Amino acid sequence: MLRVHCLARVSTCCLSPRAAPRPAISISRTRTTAGRGLRWRAVGSTRGYATSCDKLLFRQLFEKESSTYTYLLADVSHPDKPAVLIDPVDKTVDRDLSLVKELGLKLIYAMNTHVHADHVTGTGLIKGKVPGVKSVISKASNARADFLIKTGEKIHFGDLFLEVRATPGHTQGCVTYVTGDGPSQPQPRMAFTGDALLICGCGRTDFQGGSSLQLYQSVHAQIFTLPKDTLVYPAHDYKGFTVSSVGEELLYNPRFLKDEKTFKSIMENLNLSYPKMIDVAVPANMVCGLQDLSAKPAEAASN
Amino acid sequence: MLRVHCLARVSTCCLSPRAAPRPAISISRTRTTAGRGLRWRAVGSTRGYATSCDKLLFRQLFEKESSTYTYLLADVSHPDKPAVLIDPVDKTVDRDLSLVKELGLKLIYAMNTHVHADHVTGTGLIKGKVPGVKSVISKASNARADFLIKTGEKIHFGDLFLEVRATPGHTQGCVTYVTGDGPSQPQPRMAFTGDALLICGCGRTDFQGGSSLQLYQSVHAQIFTLPKDTLVYPAHDYKGFTVSSVGEELLYNPRFLKDEKTFKSIMENLNLSYPKMIDVAVPANMVCGLQDLSAKPAEAASN
Repeated sequence: MLRVHCLARVSTCCLSPRAAPRPAISISRTRTTAGRGLRWRAVGSTRGYATSCDKLLFRQLFEKESSTYTYLLADVSHPDKPAVLIDPVDKTVDRDLSLVKELGLKLIYAMNTHVHADHVTGTGLIKGKVPGVKSVISKASNARADFLIKTGEKIHFGDLFLEVRATPGHTQGCVTYVTGDGPSQPQPRMAFTGDALLICGCGRTDFQGGSSLQLYQSVHAQIFTLPKDTLVYPAHDYKGFTVSSVGEELLYNPRFLKDEKTFKSIMENLNLSYPKMIDVAVPANMVCGLQDLSAKPAEAASN
Repeated sequence: MLRVHCLARVSTCCLSPRAAPRPAISISRTRTTAGRGLRWRAVGSTRGYATSCDKLLFRQLFEKESSTYTYLLADVSHPDKPAVLIDPVDKTVDRDLSLVKELGLKLIYAMNTHVHADHVTGTGLIKGKVPGVKSVISKASNARADFLIKTGEKIHFGDLFLEVRATPGHTQGCVTYVTGDGPSQPQPRMAFTGDALLICGCGRTDFQGGSSLQLYQSVHAQIFTLPKDTLVYPAHDYKGFTVSSVGEELLYNPRFLKDEKTFKSIMENLNLSYPKMIDVAVPANMVCGLQDLSAKPAEAASN
């Protein structure tokens, strides 16, 4: 199998006497010998750690107006302390970047689980404020970003990585980012589910290429197949919950407990009002947030 | 030394074939041979666990109106899965109790860090809804509760415990609950600081027996002396932060970085408006929440 590194190495190794740590930035993919059907896998680390908690720095952040959670993850065992932000919000960018700075982290990716309709992403603002940060979103979203990722890919930050799982249905381009599997990765695993799976709920399916049947299948095939102790971190919560688990959602999510037909019927009869931010947020989020439009266009990448 | 168990044992041992686990409920104190000066300490467990993460179930919950955090902790390694709630809010009691039920926990304590002025505690409601739950608050608060605790005491739930540290200054009765020290307790430690120490801030000191000098000394002596990696979980956050650490607060808390005199000056010149909930919340919270008044008075305990 041919291993291809999609991103340039960042010269961090020389900063530390430690033996050959993983470069701070890398997205890796492996091409199968068959040629067709690209499959992506992690470039595995063989270094052991006593516990994964020693390596991962994790912070959950909340934006009250849209009830959005932003997640900060970093490998603090790496000399560079490379970090990623998942689903940053424009209004809380300064808060997030202050925290990154205070913790001595090097932000490398500003990632979105999907094109949000209820708030403007902070990705564009972040790119303007922190040179070198790359934006990440799914290729299926048709949005612009530095890296357009697909299911099965791994996004590395230091020796940690996030696995991409396509979970369309709320929007056509929704993905769930899942922390890596293996002894050197966080245990239990953590799934950043966006709006595909909320705590005892899910995102609506009546806009942006949404499909209730697709969402039902996505969640069952891509999230509910994870170990039951996998922690579920959604993009929103409106009741004050901060986290759940796959096991809990399997038992108590009132929508996904139903069969596919009933789920479809539930989703078709939610009678939700028109999303008040959608006409502003979606066009902005297609280009990393409005801020990117007024600064410089985000470059679309082909990987 | 004479060991005194303050609470009746709950007959949980017979529910499990496991050898003599700690009773689900216990608050322990040790009387010194000198007689005077009661000192409290944990009845230590000698059983080892691979990691403390396997034992502790932890959930952070948010009440949006008052920006209050409620914390759920449980020892899931114990047959009873005994649990405590720290700073429950009246409006979110049903949410919290549903979660306790779904997780299969046995709630034993509803605890407050202090007599809150910005919301009504859920303690009284919880006691009415879940027989056997005991309310806990500091003796120095002069509030009524089943257990009136003091600095140095340990509150056990299964094999885990919370250590009480008096941190007055925001109110006269403020305490910080800190997870236990030792190999069988969570690492890093977790400090539930109430309003004494907020993330890059602190509670006001102009009501309820508050004192800026006392708060300054409390935080420095009782919280900043904890290991730097101790996680700081406050009773509120208004900017969307969910957690900090002692090390971060030592470096970045703009109030406690100052000397005592400057801190006092800052606190005296905050020009905050009169707390809108104080006249309702404080009288209610002195008796476990209004709900207790309309149901049955909370019994004051003498321990």
